[in-house]
Amino acid sequence: MGSHPDANLHPVATGPAKAIVDAHQAEQPLKLYSGWFCPFVQRIWTLLEEKQIPYQYIEVNPYNKPASLLSLNPRGLVPTLQYNDKPLYESTIVAEFLEDAFPDHGPNLRPRDPYENATMRIWINFFTEKVVTSFHRFLQWQPMSDKEGLERVRREFLGVLYELAKAGGEEKGGPFWGGKEPLLIDIVVAPWMVRLWVFDEFKGGLGLPVEGREGDDEVCKRLRGWIRALEERESVRNTMSEREHYLPIYQRYADDVAQSELAKATRQGGRVP
Amino acid sequence: MGSHPDANLHPVATGPAKAIVDAHQAEQPLKLYSGWFCPFVQRIWTLLEEKQIPYQYIEVNPYNKPASLLSLNPRGLVPTLQYNDKPLYESTIVAEFLEDAFPDHGPNLRPRDPYENATMRIWINFFTEKVVTSFHRFLQWQPMSDKEGLERVRREFLGVLYELAKAGGEEKGGPFWGGKEPLLIDIVVAPWMVRLWVFDEFKGGLGLPVEGREGDDEVCKRLRGWIRALEERESVRNTMSEREHYLPIYQRYADDVAQSELAKATRQGGRVP
Repeated sequence: MGSHPDANLHPVATGPAKAIVDAHQAEQPLKLYSGWFCPFVQRIWTLLEEKQIPYQYIEVNPYNKPASLLSLNPRGLVPTLQYNDKPLYESTIVAEFLEDAFPDHGPNLRPRDPYENATMRIWINFFTEKVVTSFHRFLQWQPMSDKEGLERVRREFLGVLYELAKAGGEEKGGPFWGGKEPLLIDIVVAPWMVRLWVFDEFKGGLGLPVEGREGDDEVCKRLRGWIRALEERESVRNTMSEREHYLPIYQRYADDVAQSELAKATRQGGRVP
Repeated sequence: MGSHPDANLHPVATGPAKAIVDAHQAEQPLKLYSGWFCPFVQRIWTLLEEKQIPYQYIEVNPYNKPASLLSLNPRGLVPTLQYNDKPLYESTIVAEFLEDAFPDHGPNLRPRDPYENATMRIWINFFTEKVVTSFHRFLQWQPMSDKEGLERVRREFLGVLYELAKAGGEEKGGPFWGGKEPLLIDIVVAPWMVRLWVFDEFKGGLGLPVEGREGDDEVCKRLRGWIRALEERESVRNTMSEREHYLPIYQRYADDVAQSELAKATRQGGRVP
């Protein structure tokens, strides 16, 4: 598979994530089939770390998927969870499952009030459907010479980010979406929030107003504080690899030649598959 | 708005649904903004009936949406729930909310085992994303003279229906998806399962093998039994109107001239919006 255009992927986690991977090699009834670079995986990985649930980490080479994964999930997608020898996938469903199945591990990440919980679920869907889609539309924007188009997708992305930050409820103060402590939605959005540097690297900047400068307002302040809190969260930092190994992956997205399902769906104007 | 192509819609529920509407006119803290014909509404409506949760039924004229709805949900989509003066929408999220908020009303419709619950959620997503999409691709197929194309979308639809029925677990016997009693997934799929007559009416038949005839097998038997159990369920029957009033609505889908968000998304090759 050496000729596959995505095949120059670094094979294993590095940096902080390497230590976590090394510490989770022992056999466990709960197994995470993972790709160290994948933000959908990082949702589940962060959650497992956040709640200190015992698990075995299994790195999947996307060009040579192990038979054990394919027998669980014929499409071979990550994240796939193996729980008592049975498969589970779709990252938001897996996240809710971990909350249901390990109620005594770590803090409850769902609001106890059913209405607040439902509202959080609406915004989790909003994030996956609108924010992730806009993230990729901006990141994959081509040609770069079309400055007007680039500005449009940049604004669109910032717009949905603002909408999400605003929905978190001002009265609760932050820094997380629903207040002082993170909720499931914080874990679900974190992988993209800690990858916003890709826009500085490849698209001329995210363009979020700088503190105290033109355009800085309450929502912007909250958004900046939220991003910082997520970047500093131990469970998030510990599941990140070294930036240099993300770079070639995101370069391919930025050039709009990546071949992941999500990259292709974005190219065709679609949504998260 | 008389010239709007969808505007010749019958304005109110008829048949069994009319009695239920009449019985739910009194003011209640829980209000259902509804369209009598809408299958996404019927999910929530059936669930409210199934659990005998007190609610006020409010019929929405889609061409003249009440201000009370627009102030809750600026897009004015139904179903929208008003709960203690706050809005809630997205039918599967509303369904989970009703389970969470009214635990003492009627049976628990989610499996108590977290793994089974997560699996049910995966198949609920499968239904909305694959089955509803294929239902509309088949129903809106044009031109009818392209028999090969029609046969392809018919088989595709039956294929995903079989896949769903098969996933329900043979060992549990049926007639419902997970066994003797309905679960949330049964309520979520029911509105489409009781509208399968549209294919006989407009598309030359669904083509589900007849009992004891060629092509009849275990999955087919289970699927037929499941459809019958849903059709006979009181909460489902009671939220149906007279067929003659669905006919002009589905005629417009079958001619591929309907203007709902879902109809347009199908025309553009997309998924449930």
